[in-house]
Amino acid sequence: MNKIIYADNAATTPIDADALELMFDLQKNLYANPSAAYKLSRPLKKILHESREKIAACINAAPNEIIFTSCGTESDNWAIKSAVLSNLREVLSNLREQPNIITSAVEHKAILNSCAAMEKLGCTVTKLAVDKSGAVNPAELQEKILPQTKIISVMLAHNEVGTIQPVKALAEISHAAGKIFHTDAVQAVGHIPVDVKDLNVDMLSASAHKFNGPKGIGFIYIRAGLKILPYIDGGAQEFSRRAGTENVPAVAAMALALEKNCRDIEINAAKTSDCAKILIDTLKKSNVDFIINGGENRLPGHLSLSFKNGDGETIMHRLDLKNICVSTGSACNSRQVQISHVLQALSVNPNYIRGTVRITFGRENSYEDAEIIGKQLIKCIA
Amino acid sequence: MNKIIYADNAATTPIDADALELMFDLQKNLYANPSAAYKLSRPLKKILHESREKIAACINAAPNEIIFTSCGTESDNWAIKSAVLSNLREVLSNLREQPNIITSAVEHKAILNSCAAMEKLGCTVTKLAVDKSGAVNPAELQEKILPQTKIISVMLAHNEVGTIQPVKALAEISHAAGKIFHTDAVQAVGHIPVDVKDLNVDMLSASAHKFNGPKGIGFIYIRAGLKILPYIDGGAQEFSRRAGTENVPAVAAMALALEKNCRDIEINAAKTSDCAKILIDTLKKSNVDFIINGGENRLPGHLSLSFKNGDGETIMHRLDLKNICVSTGSACNSRQVQISHVLQALSVNPNYIRGTVRITFGRENSYEDAEIIGKQLIKCIA
Repeated sequence: MNKIIYADNAATTPIDADALELMFDLQKNLYANPSAAYKLSRPLKKILHESREKIAACINAAPNEIIFTSCGTESDNWAIKSAVLSNLREVLSNLREQPNIITSAVEHKAILNSCAAMEKLGCTVTKLAVDKSGAVNPAELQEKILPQTKIISVMLAHNEVGTIQPVKALAEISHAAGKIFHTDAVQAVGHIPVDVKDLNVDMLSASAHKFNGPKGIGFIYIRAGLKILPYIDGGAQEFSRRAGTENVPAVAAMALALEKNCRDIEINAAKTSDCAKILIDTLKKSNVDFIINGGENRLPGHLSLSFKNGDGETIMHRLDLKNICVSTGSACNSRQVQISHVLQALSVNPNYIRGTVRITFGRENSYEDAEIIGKQLIKCIA
Repeated sequence: MNKIIYADNAATTPIDADALELMFDLQKNLYANPSAAYKLSRPLKKILHESREKIAACINAAPNEIIFTSCGTESDNWAIKSAVLSNLREVLSNLREQPNIITSAVEHKAILNSCAAMEKLGCTVTKLAVDKSGAVNPAELQEKILPQTKIISVMLAHNEVGTIQPVKALAEISHAAGKIFHTDAVQAVGHIPVDVKDLNVDMLSASAHKFNGPKGIGFIYIRAGLKILPYIDGGAQEFSRRAGTENVPAVAAMALALEKNCRDIEINAAKTSDCAKILIDTLKKSNVDFIINGGENRLPGHLSLSFKNGDGETIMHRLDLKNICVSTGSACNSRQVQISHVLQALSVNPNYIRGTVRITFGRENSYEDAEIIGKQLIKCIA
């Protein structure tokens, strides 16, 4: 068995062939600085504008609400830190009211470690609990909002267990209290319909390599009229909100990849959901004892499975020997061997928690892939 | 005349053909997340490591002193802001000693606007003056260092006028006072020899697209042992110092481009210097009245020329009609029509200052290009 079966699409996705070609062509032929004033730069300005329009259309935003960043992590850092730093001085001068950030216990490290950095500067951080399915309870947010809360950030879809959070309800509660609401939608954009107007979020983070775009590029949606400090200061690029020479080839490739994924969003979701179903059915036909983490309302094709008395690391490595790529959790934390903060927050049954693997199907996977993974998993566990 | 003559290599450079091929191949074939634990990610980890070694060797650093960022602007923001924010809380509680940043009056906006952002949080910023050539005076730094100075940042080579600063002397003075010294070397790396040990800097910013690498990638050198807060928090990438999924294709392309430019650094410098000389000789043969900004110690092939009673914008646009790309100054500020803060700081003669254009030759330029630009400039002025 020589073919590689890649089923770790939550970690990253293969780049779309058309997006890659476009990126290559632009890099080769349109090398000018997009901010330059001569005519050589004009097509770059046009591509930048059109890419912004395309991406905005995919999430129901206005083009001037889309700011290009280097990745989802940068977008997350921007949201959390700028919301606090913009009035850090006045707040620090009155230490009874330390600025507060509300987030959830199961956020990506890009959010949790941004919060931790702000904690070191004197902020307080409130982490909302999650139920067994990984979802936060909007009623808890309602209780926890403080006068000095500066921002509330809860992810749209979970990178480890795939849980889709009640973001619309959370945003409504935040706004009723006059607070800014941000969502890390890195795992959701391009995979489930995302409508910023319907969700009513103030800020939203996304990353191209999670939706078959290139690595090293992402964007943040910032609702028109929202005052937020830039995170990277310098030149006047991106409406003077995010400095740095624009990476037009990557931006254009991101826009194309997102456009294609959004066009085929139902087809891809149906296919990856079927893959997940085939895998689960294969496992159920054997006597393997496992649970599915993350409840019913999950990303399509996203499986976090915990096998009784199993060891996630061992399962992952055994599958790797069979050329099957899955993970134990977030790629960012793959160097750690502890149980993830997410599985702990979900209170996964202790007999199962160590035996957790994440299998995430993408648009390139086949039903055969799902069946092979199922069969190999059964062998690994036995 | 259909051929485009690109002579704005200080704004950005065409990507090296080998670097582009490598980037394309890696994007196409090695799509995995480099942080993943399966064997598909192993070559990516290796490439990341080898790229770090290559880049470190080019500037005489150790591999673990090189952290990849998204651009020079991010590197600059990191240096300035983290140096201040790391002890903002304690300093703000004692307002008599506001933290201080020392920089020069002619820095790139990535530094000046990072300083301005910190000023809004309650820091003070000291800007060292420059002489007619654009150089700062180390003696002035000596006088201006305060007990509460947190960082000193002076660029290595200037992006508008090409002036090379006495960074070694400035770093020595900073260290004697127990202060951190950073240099924005975005315009220098890959064009003049840069040795971090010899310069004795603590931090150094660089950007790939300025040395024939791709856009959207850069690095920061952080001297081993220097404690500095991460600027982008999240996953454990880059020794837990800069989070975000690693952009290995761009990193590898950057390393290859820098390696090639450093290998040919003398050949390229000789060629671009000759281009500059040919252009100046062509102008001198006519009766055009102009001055060369930036003194003698400048980047090779870098010309900032001011024409008596001329208008830089008009000259730039007239050359553009002849398919010649030059600029009036920094691309980041190309939407502005005011005279740049740099030319003002250099006290360029008021009869000449408005007639300033920047012509920056790169390794792809020919002597013929230089002669054509010279002749067309003479026509423009006449």
